[in-house]
Amino acid sequence: MGPHPAVAAIRLAVRRVLKDVLNEVPADAPAPPLVLVACSGGADSMALASALAFEAPRAGVRAGAVTVDHGLQAGSDARAREVTERLTALGLDPAEAVAVAVGRAGGPEAAARAARYAALDDAAERHRACAVLLGHTRDDQAETVLLGLARGSGIRSLSGMAAVSGSLTGAPGAAQRYRRPFLAVDRQTTRKACLVQSLPVWDDPHNADPAFTRSRVRHEALPVLEKTLGRGIVEALARTARLSRDDADALDDWARQAQRAATRPDGTLEIAALHDLPPAVRRRVLRRAAIAAGAPAGSLFARHIEETDRLITAWRGQRPLNLPGRVEARRQGGRLVLEQAGQ
Amino acid sequence: MGPHPAVAAIRLAVRRVLKDVLNEVPADAPAPPLVLVACSGGADSMALASALAFEAPRAGVRAGAVTVDHGLQAGSDARAREVTERLTALGLDPAEAVAVAVGRAGGPEAAARAARYAALDDAAERHRACAVLLGHTRDDQAETVLLGLARGSGIRSLSGMAAVSGSLTGAPGAAQRYRRPFLAVDRQTTRKACLVQSLPVWDDPHNADPAFTRSRVRHEALPVLEKTLGRGIVEALARTARLSRDDADALDDWARQAQRAATRPDGTLEIAALHDLPPAVRRRVLRRAAIAAGAPAGSLFARHIEETDRLITAWRGQRPLNLPGRVEARRQGGRLVLEQAGQ
Repeated sequence: MGPHPAVAAIRLAVRRVLKDVLNEVPADAPAPPLVLVACSGGADSMALASALAFEAPRAGVRAGAVTVDHGLQAGSDARAREVTERLTALGLDPAEAVAVAVGRAGGPEAAARAARYAALDDAAERHRACAVLLGHTRDDQAETVLLGLARGSGIRSLSGMAAVSGSLTGAPGAAQRYRRPFLAVDRQTTRKACLVQSLPVWDDPHNADPAFTRSRVRHEALPVLEKTLGRGIVEALARTARLSRDDADALDDWARQAQRAATRPDGTLEIAALHDLPPAVRRRVLRRAAIAAGAPAGSLFARHIEETDRLITAWRGQRPLNLPGRVEARRQGGRLVLEQAGQ
Repeated sequence: MGPHPAVAAIRLAVRRVLKDVLNEVPADAPAPPLVLVACSGGADSMALASALAFEAPRAGVRAGAVTVDHGLQAGSDARAREVTERLTALGLDPAEAVAVAVGRAGGPEAAARAARYAALDDAAERHRACAVLLGHTRDDQAETVLLGLARGSGIRSLSGMAAVSGSLTGAPGAAQRYRRPFLAVDRQTTRKACLVQSLPVWDDPHNADPAFTRSRVRHEALPVLEKTLGRGIVEALARTARLSRDDADALDDWARQAQRAATRPDGTLEIAALHDLPPAVRRRVLRRAAIAAGAPAGSLFARHIEETDRLITAWRGQRPLNLPGRVEARRQGGRLVLEQAGQ
């Protein structure tokens, strides 16, 4: 008799990712290579840890684990020790707890996230791990798409989390460090897998705290969307993420090529070359050019790009525009000049 | 003292669209040209009719109206007569009621929609109107985006309704017949505009009937999304529609060019030319090619295209694939062949 279907599903997901990881192990990695799992002690990452512990020896890799103690709740250090004991019991080695100091930048969720990834990057480097697995599920992906939709800033923000992503700190050689094997696995499956394997799991009270937008999306928005639009909404949102990511990548490719083709040796842009591009591509070129000229990406809004676009498509002698980061956009003859003041 | 801000907003929206329409009047149109408004008697389209009645003489166009009697409720004919009387009182001429027979194809909402547009197309042609204005608001647009999101079929289904669209029946010379001046105006503004102009409005009971998915989205899903994600969600969804439409158009452009470049004189596709395209573009080329070979667009799902894609990107000697419409996809040497059986 094979394993329970939920256990089979999580193991299959991990097996596929280990195969990809093994295809790309750097030449200087320790042998056998080490794969880490980031584990909070919750059902998703505990299921991931159990599947990694099972699959790693069969794939010829070592399996280790890191649990991050955010220090945000009383007793979080004891909790982290308990999680590492469970991870050790699963056979993961190393299984370490790392305490971090969470700042305030960008709000509580973003600050905790930044501290967590910094600690995971650090652990990956200390142990020379070739990958770090993250337990995000299809439900997390659906929530991320809804949060992106609320920004209304286009398809890149609808593309959710990537199955493969790099170090947030931009560590060299870590462009494919993070892997999310469970993006097509639902949360119910990870819970079931923990249950049938008798793995105790810890429910982070933050996940149910309505002070957090993600928690409200999970407990209020998604259930109502399921009720009004049908049970398939989670899968539809996850599929939207995959399709949007590919679409956004393709349009970024096009914009990169179009920018290169329109840029003159003096750094100005040929109006004629920009004019005939589809609006979606032209706006991306303008955004890239404004950032290259010194405008901070986070301060550059759609209305800035639209105003700049009108210098090309609706030219009637407008005055130069002031963009964020003291970048000035002006039309000069047949060229568009984007330049930081004082240069 | 100028008009109430709500009235000013609806008039401005109509003024802008009339300007666009006047820029593209066909040479053989009657002079002065006629613009029709489609009016159900509800707040959105009654506000639109009032704004058109005000702006049309100032723009040098004639203004008329059509109300469609779907015959789905008792007394709908009397209701339609009442609406045309109100439209005539606003100064619209012609102001006519058209009774239609609603079929069943595609469900009640789709069937009513098909019958309505057929009647509007017919009225536009009989009166030689150069445009038909539709009262869809930003709120309708947000609902349409959510309905598209539930399909999970990519950014084209997120792009909502177009500000300008053609005849559904593909009538020649009617590629820009329908105009939606209110896509950036919210429903609250149209209601307010009717109120301050003392225009009686009719609330279609269908709009509140939870048997209709759109009604559930309006009355259940959107209020909860506003509560969990913030009041800006309607605007964010409408912005997503605009951005997605432009992105989808650009990717379709690219796919059209890539298909042309990859197609050999015998109609087969060069594998090498397809292989290096971004996945988002390659999948669109494959979809276009499958439809051109005879696969019905509505039966062609993502999994069909993904399987076909593997003939290019994960070739290991697969057998020919059967796509809908008896279309076979196979790899033959360096070419991809898409062919209907029996040819």
